[in-house]
Amino acid sequence: MEKILIFKIGGKVIDDFMHLEKFLKDFAEIDTRKLLIHGGGKWVSAMSDRLGIEVKMIDGRRITDKDTLEVVKMMLPGVANKNIVSLLQKHQCNALGLTGADGNLIKSIKRPIKEGRDFGYVGDVTEVNVNQLDIIIKAGFVPVFTALTHDGEGQLLNTNADTIASSLAIGLSSVYEVDLFYCLEKAGVLKDVSNEHSIIKSINSEVYEGLKESGIIHSGMIPKIDNAFDAIKKGVSKVHICHYNDVERIPKGNLDIGTVISG
Amino acid sequence: MEKILIFKIGGKVIDDFMHLEKFLKDFAEIDTRKLLIHGGGKWVSAMSDRLGIEVKMIDGRRITDKDTLEVVKMMLPGVANKNIVSLLQKHQCNALGLTGADGNLIKSIKRPIKEGRDFGYVGDVTEVNVNQLDIIIKAGFVPVFTALTHDGEGQLLNTNADTIASSLAIGLSSVYEVDLFYCLEKAGVLKDVSNEHSIIKSINSEVYEGLKESGIIHSGMIPKIDNAFDAIKKGVSKVHICHYNDVERIPKGNLDIGTVISG
Repeated sequence: MEKILIFKIGGKVIDDFMHLEKFLKDFAEIDTRKLLIHGGGKWVSAMSDRLGIEVKMIDGRRITDKDTLEVVKMMLPGVANKNIVSLLQKHQCNALGLTGADGNLIKSIKRPIKEGRDFGYVGDVTEVNVNQLDIIIKAGFVPVFTALTHDGEGQLLNTNADTIASSLAIGLSSVYEVDLFYCLEKAGVLKDVSNEHSIIKSINSEVYEGLKESGIIHSGMIPKIDNAFDAIKKGVSKVHICHYNDVERIPKGNLDIGTVISG
Repeated sequence: MEKILIFKIGGKVIDDFMHLEKFLKDFAEIDTRKLLIHGGGKWVSAMSDRLGIEVKMIDGRRITDKDTLEVVKMMLPGVANKNIVSLLQKHQCNALGLTGADGNLIKSIKRPIKEGRDFGYVGDVTEVNVNQLDIIIKAGFVPVFTALTHDGEGQLLNTNADTIASSLAIGLSSVYEVDLFYCLEKAGVLKDVSNEHSIIKSINSEVYEGLKESGIIHSGMIPKIDNAFDAIKKGVSKVHICHYNDVERIPKGNLDIGTVISG
């Protein structure tokens, strides 16, 4: 099976132009098949502020009301995606910007109101159109997805970029050997959070149980790693939790960056 | 040669949701290969206003300064393109949103400052990547372009949608028999501007000379028709100047809508 590398970026690497251009240059130099997914939540918050649209939250998660959805459309497939695509083109990477609506590639349903909690125009992924996406990949384009999907009835829906990444990775695992990279601002899962060098190099399900029991892995990292194991169960080869700067090592032949999660 | 129909929309049909959805429903029903180009200048003006960005003009043409370019990115590939793509998907048309930067499909150069007139981040089309675009078309996607291109050096450039339409039409004429439709708010080139029914059904170069001499065609219509003849000289089969409402006749088999300009 041919290999494809799927990268998800968000946070600081998107917010800071210097970081973004360095990452994109590194990404452009990778010479296997590849795909990028990006968020841009801080850009949405900043523009919402500027337009006087209140950012509403439930349990620390953004509510996408009608006005916020318009800002999401402006900033994600608009400013962020077009900046990323044009920068990748500058570095000879044949990027093609996409949302889930384009080519009907990712369908979702509006998240139902549950226990009175209404997240608004937020979509939960239901379907990835792998065949159509693979035509784009095989034609030599590098898909650059942003965090927007659609319901097939004309409604765009704000969608978690991590979920899009794992859905695409799972979908493409029927055609490719998939490595999924979650690029963060830290070097991997750490044994000791105060020590950036204490990276746990690899986690399998056995190791994971031990790490949870001993309390080394806890709170926010647990759902991330649970999702990684879910992706692996559904066909993804490896999931990496890594620093976006370490992607520079991949074109030099070192794929084992960050914490590597495998079956 | 297989036929492709290329439509350019702008103005009222974009501004008014009711008009837009009707047009898109009609467009979706056309069962030959097809492609859409849209502007959205009024959306850019409205958002510029809202953000307190002054709209600057030279001779009635917008200057795209740095701030305005950001608004163009927000409103054209962001809001307008994504709304159009998701509505077309609703009507079972497999739309794929594009700018010239995506897939390096349309390259341009920043318009040089001439006689002290600087239009800012405006691009003049230099190259259409027909082979790559045709892969997308042959895969069954319906390209939906907006009025943004790039210089290949990481710079996005605001680009006239009429010019994009004729550049794409000329480029694709090496592979397809191309009919290009400029969809306006009037039924075609009129003999008598006060009479919407006085459409000139067809214009060839001979007829055109006569119409110019007699003053029936004058001022703003002359560059439009000159551009149409230029496209025809370069391989386009027919150029239509038509009302966007009349596109509803095409799925019923009537291609000869509006004023048909041919060699």
